Amino acid sequence: MGSASTLLLHLFLMFVAARLAGELCERLKQPAVIGELLIGIALGPFALGWIGLPSSEMIGALGSPEMATATLDSVYEMLAQIGAIVLLFRVGLQTQLSDILRVGPRAALVALGGMAVSFGLVFGYALVFGSPPVSAIFIGAAMVATSVGITARVMADLGILDADEARIILAAAITDDILTLIVLALVSSIGQSGGLSIGAIGLVTAEAILFAAVVAFAGRHIARTWGHRLEHLHIDNAPFSVAAAAMLGLAVLSTKIGLAAIIGAFLAGMVASELREEYALERQTRPLYDFLVPIFFVITGSRVDWHVFLDGSLVGIALAITVLAILGKVIGCGSGAVSLGWRSATLVGVGMVPRGEVSLIVANTGHSLGVIPDSMFSAIVVVIVLTTLVVPPCLKALVSGRSGRDGVQTATPELALADADPPRP
Amino acid sequence: MGSASTLLLHLFLMFVAARLAGELCERLKQPAVIGELLIGIALGPFALGWIGLPSSEMIGALGSPEMATATLDSVYEMLAQIGAIVLLFRVGLQTQLSDILRVGPRAALVALGGMAVSFGLVFGYALVFGSPPVSAIFIGAAMVATSVGITARVMADLGILDADEARIILAAAITDDILTLIVLALVSSIGQSGGLSIGAIGLVTAEAILFAAVVAFAGRHIARTWGHRLEHLHIDNAPFSVAAAAMLGLAVLSTKIGLAAIIGAFLAGMVASELREEYALERQTRPLYDFLVPIFFVITGSRVDWHVFLDGSLVGIALAITVLAILGKVIGCGSGAVSLGWRSATLVGVGMVPRGEVSLIVANTGHSLGVIPDSMFSAIVVVIVLTTLVVPPCLKALVSGRSGRDGVQTATPELALADADPPRP
Repeated sequence: MGSASTLLLHLFLMFVAARLAGELCERLKQPAVIGELLIGIALGPFALGWIGLPSSEMIGALGSPEMATATLDSVYEMLAQIGAIVLLFRVGLQTQLSDILRVGPRAALVALGGMAVSFGLVFGYALVFGSPPVSAIFIGAAMVATSVGITARVMADLGILDADEARIILAAAITDDILTLIVLALVSSIGQSGGLSIGAIGLVTAEAILFAAVVAFAGRHIARTWGHRLEHLHIDNAPFSVAAAAMLGLAVLSTKIGLAAIIGAFLAGMVASELREEYALERQTRPLYDFLVPIFFVITGSRVDWHVFLDGSLVGIALAITVLAILGKVIGCGSGAVSLGWRSATLVGVGMVPRGEVSLIVANTGHSLGVIPDSMFSAIVVVIVLTTLVVPPCLKALVSGRSGRDGVQTATPELALADADPPRP
Repeated sequence: MGSASTLLLHLFLMFVAARLAGELCERLKQPAVIGELLIGIALGPFALGWIGLPSSEMIGALGSPEMATATLDSVYEMLAQIGAIVLLFRVGLQTQLSDILRVGPRAALVALGGMAVSFGLVFGYALVFGSPPVSAIFIGAAMVATSVGITARVMADLGILDADEARIILAAAITDDILTLIVLALVSSIGQSGGLSIGAIGLVTAEAILFAAVVAFAGRHIARTWGHRLEHLHIDNAPFSVAAAAMLGLAVLSTKIGLAAIIGAFLAGMVASELREEYALERQTRPLYDFLVPIFFVITGSRVDWHVFLDGSLVGIALAITVLAILGKVIGCGSGAVSLGWRSATLVGVGMVPRGEVSLIVANTGHSLGVIPDSMFSAIVVVIVLTTLVVPPCLKALVSGRSGRDGVQTATPELALADADPPRP
């Protein structure tokens, strides 16, 4: 019983801390995810130690400190993984295959431009400053994905969700999430094998694309043909149960063929988005999201050793990567949208700057593979926090400057805020 | 990674198996919980071994079979505990303090009669056939609570949810759930201390009643006075988050003062039921219930060693306890309702027969304390399955016999089925 009650106490602390920190951030007009990461650092084993360390009660129950620590780590990793799975499932639920296929060439150009320039700058910097190639690839890959959640939230706060630029940003952000999942499959395989063979890269790419394509097209067909039969099942709430089973099942299948579990979860969400509106899967998966996703970010934060920030050179590295990560999106995405005029292109570029959940997932994967060292992992978390903090004021300045002159359409902020979920582009 | 992916696979297997078995049971007009228990036995370490045993991958990742087994057991125990917490939270959500206080003397009489006679018969039997007193107390305590979920479901299937007898059964079943929680606090303390001192019993009773009373009355006051302020919080879905935090927090607090975690969870649910309707907590906690509660029953089933049923004497014990458990409710509850006439009294008595979730929780607690041996734990699971299986045909016979003569009011079964949640009595 000692083990279970310690784990229950940790779960309670993580959940309450996450929601309190999130509340504080929202009041300071910052994304909740920043507060969740910071409170994770504060409560974690490198600072207060309220979470992430076994209690003496738990050590007593399990017989040895090693046993207790291994058990605690496994539980944390499982909780974090389920949180990431639910997160990506819900991103998938907001994405339809047809949206992906219909995404305009401009959004694709914006996504690819931002990814390529961000990766090039950060990878090059890491390589020049002495990271091994495999590590540099992971650090670069962690910087390619825009956080669609944070971007959408900031634009909603500014009341510009209906503007053309916002539509492009959302479509591009979704595209780069998906491309990042393929990149993650690639770099994970590189991280595991340690090598960079063209053959292996080709195999992983082919495997990832084949898996994604088969699941997406076959899944859509099944969902559309058989989805209406779910209401004939006798168990309560059958559509939710089937969607949750698909989420877990495809996540497991992904790991079995060597891809990240979240790729399967995303695909399951995308397939489930084809099911009927009245199954209300977005509404029904919301409580799982609200319960598990904040805990995922607190656990991620708890892995950050804040002591590294007493090391001036590491702070320098974090700042340098932040600048490159910002330039990568502003230049790369801006170039893709340059036909809209320079001010709109800048707006799109700046809107694509925030990094978030997916970057953390890439960094986490590299960290558990032992490819991203502790110090660099901590630096990446700082970069995520900084890129997110820097965007709201910049976007605000760009939008107010623009609306003053060209009369940009800005909805009532209160009204836009109510619609916190990004609309389908 | 090996550890997390094994745990993810087990989670997937348990969830899918639970829902498939539940679906099959519903089609056979049996409660889903029976299927969940049976599939847990089949998949568990004593049979197929698909769940409950660490994979070689996990053993490799953690370094030793002992480490892997300890980790797996802790994770299973945590999952089962969270499932039980969510289950009792939702029972609490369907119970208002005013309902409890307003419960008519008849429902209280029915509840107390059924509890006393069931406990007396089963405790006496266990004692006579050689169980140590502490063990006999636990076995008796496991037989006192009617399963309000199963009872309500069966009556809905028969279309008699609106009848007077059904109202009494529901009120009495809720009352005996709550009284059983106090009994559980009592027997847990006895199980831990091994003793039966009157002083200790008095202390635990006083502590349990004081804790329950303070939380219930203070919580209701807080919920009514401050509850409307929850909508001023900035985080998404604040009422759900606050309710979930209260659920985890009061569960932890319960364990800290020596009570079962589920007592706190039940009280949190009862307090949360005072919050505004529009916070939709019943709807919002439903996905957590659908996700976690079936897994709790599969894990409970996986702890049953079916080999004991090759042992004829144990099968005899299970059958004997089943007969006593049925007699206990029919005689005890029937006497409490005898003023309604003998047929209605029998209907009430038979309606109170099914044992379920709460019995399993008591048995589980005794089992983890080492007071209920493996064989008796398995026998109790059989008793739960049999008491549940025996009721639908008996109730059906009683109701159709009665409706033929006195024209009992029976709603359209299809219509009644749609309302699977028990209404507030």
